[in-house]
Amino acid sequence: MDVSEFFLKLLLIIISAKFFAEVFIYLHLPSVLGEVIAGIIIGPSLLGFIEPDATFHLLAEIGILLLLFEVGLETDVGQIIKVGIQSTLVAITGVATPAAAGFWVSYHWFGLDMIPSLFIGGTMVATSIGITVRVLVDLKKRHTKVSQIVIGAAVMDDVIGVVVLAVLYDFAVKGTVSIADTARVMFFIAVFLVLAPIIAKLFVPTMAKLSSVSKTKGMIPALIVSLILGLAVISHKVGAPEILGSFAAGLALARRFFLPLGATIEHYSHEMAEKIE
Amino acid sequence: MDVSEFFLKLLLIIISAKFFAEVFIYLHLPSVLGEVIAGIIIGPSLLGFIEPDATFHLLAEIGILLLLFEVGLETDVGQIIKVGIQSTLVAITGVATPAAAGFWVSYHWFGLDMIPSLFIGGTMVATSIGITVRVLVDLKKRHTKVSQIVIGAAVMDDVIGVVVLAVLYDFAVKGTVSIADTARVMFFIAVFLVLAPIIAKLFVPTMAKLSSVSKTKGMIPALIVSLILGLAVISHKVGAPEILGSFAAGLALARRFFLPLGATIEHYSHEMAEKIE
Repeated sequence: MDVSEFFLKLLLIIISAKFFAEVFIYLHLPSVLGEVIAGIIIGPSLLGFIEPDATFHLLAEIGILLLLFEVGLETDVGQIIKVGIQSTLVAITGVATPAAAGFWVSYHWFGLDMIPSLFIGGTMVATSIGITVRVLVDLKKRHTKVSQIVIGAAVMDDVIGVVVLAVLYDFAVKGTVSIADTARVMFFIAVFLVLAPIIAKLFVPTMAKLSSVSKTKGMIPALIVSLILGLAVISHKVGAPEILGSFAAGLALARRFFLPLGATIEHYSHEMAEKIE
Repeated sequence: MDVSEFFLKLLLIIISAKFFAEVFIYLHLPSVLGEVIAGIIIGPSLLGFIEPDATFHLLAEIGILLLLFEVGLETDVGQIIKVGIQSTLVAITGVATPAAAGFWVSYHWFGLDMIPSLFIGGTMVATSIGITVRVLVDLKKRHTKVSQIVIGAAVMDDVIGVVVLAVLYDFAVKGTVSIADTARVMFFIAVFLVLAPIIAKLFVPTMAKLSSVSKTKGMIPALIVSLILGLAVISHKVGAPEILGSFAAGLALARRFFLPLGATIEHYSHEMAEKIE
C-alpha cells in the first residue's frame, strides 16, 4: 500500500467513525455502534473503500490492547472479586447459551457435520470486551455494579472461549480430548491471571527508578507500553488471549497501586498540553 | 505476521531504542543517534530480528508525520522568514555539495553511467528533517537562530529533493527536461506551502465549533489528526512530500494562531492524566 493511500484510508476511517458516532449519540444510541456501522459501510460489506489488510489489522490490535489496558486501569479488583459469583453465573450463561444455539442451528437447521457445528458453537463463546466496555461507557454505566459483573464475565468468557476452541481443535485432530492438557492450559491461564498483576506491580519501583535516572524524554510512556506488550506476549505464550496481558498490566498500574508514578505522568501530559497550546 | 510476533517486535524496538538513546546521552551524544544505532543492530544489517515490512514502514510514516506536525507547531513563521536568506544559502549548499559529491563519486570512482550517477546524486539532496530536529533538540539548540536557519533549509532541501528526482526521472524516461513541467511542479508546491497553513487556520473555527457541539469523546484529537492526514494527502497530490502537509498543519495550529483551542486540549490532557494517575 502506497503511503499516501494509507493516510487517505486512515483519514476516511477517522472521519466516518466520528460522524456515525455523533449521529448515534444524537439518536440516543451508544456511539460505539455508530463506529461499527461506519466500518460496515466503508468496509468490504458495502462500499469497499477499505479492505482489511495486515497493517490495519495490526493497528487495530494495538488499539484493542490499549483499550483493555484502560479497562484494567479503571477496574477495582476488590469489587470484581466481590461480584465474582454473579460474574461467574453471567459468564457461564454467556458461554452456554450462544454456544448451544450456534451448535444447534448449524447441526439441525443447516445440517452441518458434528465437528463444524461444534466449532461454530465454539466461536460464539468469546465476548468482545472492547465493545462491552464501550457500550457501558457510552450508556454512562461504567462504574455501576452491573458493569463490574458484566466486565468480569466478559474477561472469563474470553478465557473460556480460547480454552473451548483449543479443546475442540484437539478433538477434531485427535478424536479425543485430553483432560490433562485442558487442565494444564486452564491452570497456566489462572496462574498468569493471578501472578501477572503482582509481577507487574513489582515492576513499578523499577519503572520509577528508571524514569528518575533517565535523561531521554518519554521514558514513562515507553516503560508502560513495554509492560503492556511484554505481558501480552507472555499471555499468548501461556495460551491466553493477548488482551488478558494488557488487562493485567492495567490492573497492576491502577489508581490504588500507582500513586508515585501518576504524578510524573500528569507532569508529562501538562508539558504536552502546553506545547500544543 | 502473527499478532503476538508483531507485539514482540514492537517491544524489542522500544526497549532497544530507549536503551541506546540513554547510552548515547550518557556519552554526551544526541540520543537520536542511539536510536539509529539500535535500528542498525536489531535490523537486517546486523542481528536481523526485525525485517522492514509494510506495517513497520507505515507505522514509521505515521511517526514522521506527527514529528513534523510537532516541528510545525514549534516553528515561528516570522523568524523562519527573517532568516530566509541564510536558510536559502544553507539549503543550496546542502543540495549542491552532496548532489555533486554523489554524482562525482558514482561517475568517476565507480565508473557508473551518466543517468545512474545523476540519480545517486539526486537521492543525496533531501535532508531528513526528523533527524535534524531531533539532533537540535537533543543538543538543546532547538530554539536558537541557527536552529531556525537549519530547519528552514531542511524543509527547502526536501522540496528541492523531490523536484530534482522528478526532473531526473523525466530526463531518464524522455531524454529531455521540460522546463514548463518543472516550473509547474515548483509553482504547485510553492502555492501549497503558502496556502496550506492559511486554509488550515481557516479550519480552526470550524474545529472549535465541531468540538463544542460534539458529544463523543476525543473530537479535538480526531480533528487535528484528520487535518494532518488531509494536508499530507493533498501535499502528495501536488507533488510535494507528505511531511510538508503535516508541517503546514503544525504551522497553522502553532501557539500564536491557536489560543482558543489550546485550552480545550489542555483540558483533555488533564482528564487523561487524572485517569492514569
